[in-house]
Amino acid sequence: MKKIINSVTDVEEEMIEGFVLANGRQVRRLGNSNIILRRNLNPNKVALLIGGGSGHEPAHLGYVGYGMLDCAVCGSIFTSPTPADFLKAIETVNNDKGVLCIIKNYSGDLMSSEMAMERAGSQGIKVDRVVVSDDVATIDSEIGRRGVAGTLLVYKIAGAAAEAGLDLATVKSLTLKTIDNVCSMGMAISPCTIPASGIASFELGEQEMELGIGIHGEPGISREKLTTASDIVEKMLKQILNNLDCTDREVVVMVNGMGATPLMELLIVNKFVNEKLTNNSIKVYDSMVGNYMTSIEMGGFSLTLLRLDEELKSYYDAAADTFALKKWKQE
Amino acid sequence: MKKIINSVTDVEEEMIEGFVLANGRQVRRLGNSNIILRRNLNPNKVALLIGGGSGHEPAHLGYVGYGMLDCAVCGSIFTSPTPADFLKAIETVNNDKGVLCIIKNYSGDLMSSEMAMERAGSQGIKVDRVVVSDDVATIDSEIGRRGVAGTLLVYKIAGAAAEAGLDLATVKSLTLKTIDNVCSMGMAISPCTIPASGIASFELGEQEMELGIGIHGEPGISREKLTTASDIVEKMLKQILNNLDCTDREVVVMVNGMGATPLMELLIVNKFVNEKLTNNSIKVYDSMVGNYMTSIEMGGFSLTLLRLDEELKSYYDAAADTFALKKWKQE
Repeated sequence: MKKIINSVTDVEEEMIEGFVLANGRQVRRLGNSNIILRRNLNPNKVALLIGGGSGHEPAHLGYVGYGMLDCAVCGSIFTSPTPADFLKAIETVNNDKGVLCIIKNYSGDLMSSEMAMERAGSQGIKVDRVVVSDDVATIDSEIGRRGVAGTLLVYKIAGAAAEAGLDLATVKSLTLKTIDNVCSMGMAISPCTIPASGIASFELGEQEMELGIGIHGEPGISREKLTTASDIVEKMLKQILNNLDCTDREVVVMVNGMGATPLMELLIVNKFVNEKLTNNSIKVYDSMVGNYMTSIEMGGFSLTLLRLDEELKSYYDAAADTFALKKWKQE
Repeated sequence: MKKIINSVTDVEEEMIEGFVLANGRQVRRLGNSNIILRRNLNPNKVALLIGGGSGHEPAHLGYVGYGMLDCAVCGSIFTSPTPADFLKAIETVNNDKGVLCIIKNYSGDLMSSEMAMERAGSQGIKVDRVVVSDDVATIDSEIGRRGVAGTLLVYKIAGAAAEAGLDLATVKSLTLKTIDNVCSMGMAISPCTIPASGIASFELGEQEMELGIGIHGEPGISREKLTTASDIVEKMLKQILNNLDCTDREVVVMVNGMGATPLMELLIVNKFVNEKLTNNSIKVYDSMVGNYMTSIEMGGFSLTLLRLDEELKSYYDAAADTFALKKWKQE
């Protein structure tokens, strides 16, 4: 394991300190907790709160700010936050418009947030939850589809809806609509290593790739010979489009690096995604290419499609000003 | 060599196509050339043009857009653009206000741009040049300090000055002032591989790091035992501050990933940079943390300081809207 860190026990703490120092204009930390808050909480909008393990930077703390999230509750690397931290966060962002928690579909995140929501509810706090499950690779598993990089597009739409002043029920319903229209799949050519364990998540040969990997280093659904960028895109798009029919529709494409993949390769992937979608009578409204939700230093990428209609498009286009995603205000 | 590409000969072409597809709102490509232009060239401002090898994405093409560059001339990976491409670019962006070329201090870039400028000058085009040389690691070498990630801050200041409508001489003088106030140093824990060669730029043992590396995989000035993030920052800051006295001044910090370094580690580095500067009576005005100028998939980071005064600060704060750097318009 070769990492630029101090000690494996201080990684999360020092990363959070470094993040707040890089982004003090937008965010603050709640005491010494792992809870990142928007610096100017607006009591007249639905508060959006997410919680999840660390190791996916810039997700999730990098999306706290104008037009996106109000709060990120950070667990340890690949570990759910505690119910106590979730509760503290809900209590802090709570206002008369209510709180919406956006949770990725993992049992730990579900359990912690549910316990916290019950406690908050018994205090009279108006709090609700949506669960993101965009990963087609795990469609047949017991827990169902995992939440992966598509979650970020859910933050974007939900954030714009909340910023527009909509009520909790309406923000929730728009968020669920987004979840119904987003679909992802990931692949890796090299593993990640959790600092505390020092053990690589999986091993791959020089000519091997893994399709359908998760964002916590979960192995994929098939191990295959590493092929061309064009062929890899073809395989992944087929799975996604089988689950989300986009024919004659407009989509947002997200090509997301897993942490160690150079932008050069992500851009090459984007070319083939755009071309193949166009050949399938699917119109690309926008392409996002970069490291949006990573797995520490995993090599590989995930591909996400968000199927648009005019309503989703207007919230997608809305202004945002966060560490990891900025959209200019329209003139 | 494990890369997500199609063929080693198509990397640059397919990357440029993927980039334009991801960023069609801001940029266009000049015919089938490797010249990326701002979609709406403004004839009433000094045109800013940069040229350099590929392999540093998002540099340089990712900085074409409002508030930064008008044109990026892309060479092959780690290879200078041809004089002919430089000339074509100068002719295309040329207007009555003139053209300023921002070149990093490498002999190929210097020679190509000089030949093109001579030809352009003989056509009556008003064109001038500045050379960025921010890398303290090569202060004692024959060609002098190389241009590395600090170049991006030069784009930012020059771009804002040009956008403000200043004349060529004033934009040039502000750009030279920026160059005088910016200083960088890099380090690596793993090499990069040029696709066409397939050979890693250097080899490092499991416990080794290289200090003072260049952005083309050039080996560093010392090979040492990999130590803690805090110690690495201490060593690099010492070199930088020996060359750029920042005592009692304000600085912009840039912690730049070399391509394969997880954001988690860059944030940890940022914590120590901020703390050590503060302990040295240096005030951090802003911290930029991310992949700004990479070396394909090299592991490591570079550290840049920009020493501010009120003039530089105002241009640093100005709005920008590019693929890789966005700053909101102030309300």
